[in-house]
Amino acid sequence: MKPHLQIVKIGGGVLEDTEKLSAALHAFAQLEGAKILVHGGGKLATDFGHKLGITSQMIEGRRVTNEESLVLITMVYAGLVNKKMVAQLQGMRCNAIGLTGADANLIKATIRPKHPIDFGFVGDVARVDVAGIEGVLNLRMTPVFCAITHDAAGQLLNTNADTIAAEIAAAMSDQYDTTLFYCFDKKGVLNDINDEHSVIESIDETRYVQLKKEQRIAQGMLPKLANSFNALHRGVTRVCIGSVPMLSDTQYPRTTLFLHHE
Amino acid sequence: MKPHLQIVKIGGGVLEDTEKLSAALHAFAQLEGAKILVHGGGKLATDFGHKLGITSQMIEGRRVTNEESLVLITMVYAGLVNKKMVAQLQGMRCNAIGLTGADANLIKATIRPKHPIDFGFVGDVARVDVAGIEGVLNLRMTPVFCAITHDAAGQLLNTNADTIAAEIAAAMSDQYDTTLFYCFDKKGVLNDINDEHSVIESIDETRYVQLKKEQRIAQGMLPKLANSFNALHRGVTRVCIGSVPMLSDTQYPRTTLFLHHE
Repeated sequence: MKPHLQIVKIGGGVLEDTEKLSAALHAFAQLEGAKILVHGGGKLATDFGHKLGITSQMIEGRRVTNEESLVLITMVYAGLVNKKMVAQLQGMRCNAIGLTGADANLIKATIRPKHPIDFGFVGDVARVDVAGIEGVLNLRMTPVFCAITHDAAGQLLNTNADTIAAEIAAAMSDQYDTTLFYCFDKKGVLNDINDEHSVIESIDETRYVQLKKEQRIAQGMLPKLANSFNALHRGVTRVCIGSVPMLSDTQYPRTTLFLHHE
Repeated sequence: MKPHLQIVKIGGGVLEDTEKLSAALHAFAQLEGAKILVHGGGKLATDFGHKLGITSQMIEGRRVTNEESLVLITMVYAGLVNKKMVAQLQGMRCNAIGLTGADANLIKATIRPKHPIDFGFVGDVARVDVAGIEGVLNLRMTPVFCAITHDAAGQLLNTNADTIAAEIAAAMSDQYDTTLFYCFDKKGVLNDINDEHSVIESIDETRYVQLKKEQRIAQGMLPKLANSFNALHRGVTRVCIGSVPMLSDTQYPRTTLFLHHE
């Protein structure tokens, strides 16, 4: 039997709120066995950007990572947010080690093609070093990844944190029984976006295709679900989408994604 | 026989100059065997501080690390400087992994007593986790430490990079034959501060005491020498002070420090 590995991505309103973040880190610290945390930088990067006079160009609603923005997110994601989290987790007796994909070449990415749209220093994951991450886990260290990768030729790249979490989970699935948690400030995938009690308990692939066709999935949720089903196809055992309490309370509402209902 | 371990601290004018930094990283990447890099953030932190309106209070010529300054150095040292270096080293086929002392609890510090002077969030090294660093080295990863530690109770702390390098070198000396390099923009300890050709080739402890008594050591060099002799007393084999080329050229001028001439 493969050992269990839990990959937890926190974002969406959890990072910006000191109390919510602290609760999330507590819940994460309590998880037993091998685990990995993944995070972005949320609104903090935008706030520091304003102070530094760095504005992000947006194309079709998506941020372009120019050289200045890359400096900004490297400071905020890999520096401030990552290291404060690591220190907090250490204070909770969780042996966290903060990483980018550049560190030990654990996540190599390729810069996104400049056509049709040039998003700048944005990377798509090319390779996760399973043996490297396993080595770190075997030292009883808990990796905390921020949303930065590199091209292995000297260039840091901005990579979506949801994608990083899904790519790590998928890559580690050969060696581990993996559960991927997408932890944010909603209780799961909602049937009615205005009713937070309308959490859909589980979604298999047939239902996912149907929900998409009926356009009943909130716009912001679509990439999360696409990432999730991609990861499930590549061997991830289960994906849970919900809020922080789901990490410590197995009865807490959440949306669980499967390929097929058994 | 113990395996060799080289600890290289770079600072003082090397970090701010893209070409010098690149040369230093190249020389470091070429070093054979186990090695560790240590760096601060130099003038970059001051520059970003100006942009963010964060000014450092100075007491008796020494910087006070208030909460704002800690945010600043965490962004600049652990984020920007550390991760850019890691990416560059990876591009040179050196398997760098960027770390603070908080990561994997590798360097625990205690906050400096608030009396007689309150320096804020400044930490003095309490414990280097030799087994943890050895574990990372055994994974064929090359640690790159910035000048940040933690108290293991949730608080990041600012710690002098020269001291971190000396503490790591001293702690690792039980397991390794250690050489500590202090790499900056001078060729070594100078007999005459205005003559860069007046490098003192070697200094043993007797000569060190004598030079100190005669007040012939430049003010900025005193803590480096104190750190060095402290490390030598704790088992470090040799300390070399000089500029980047000494890393790759054994004939290049430098000052080598020993306890006793053999």
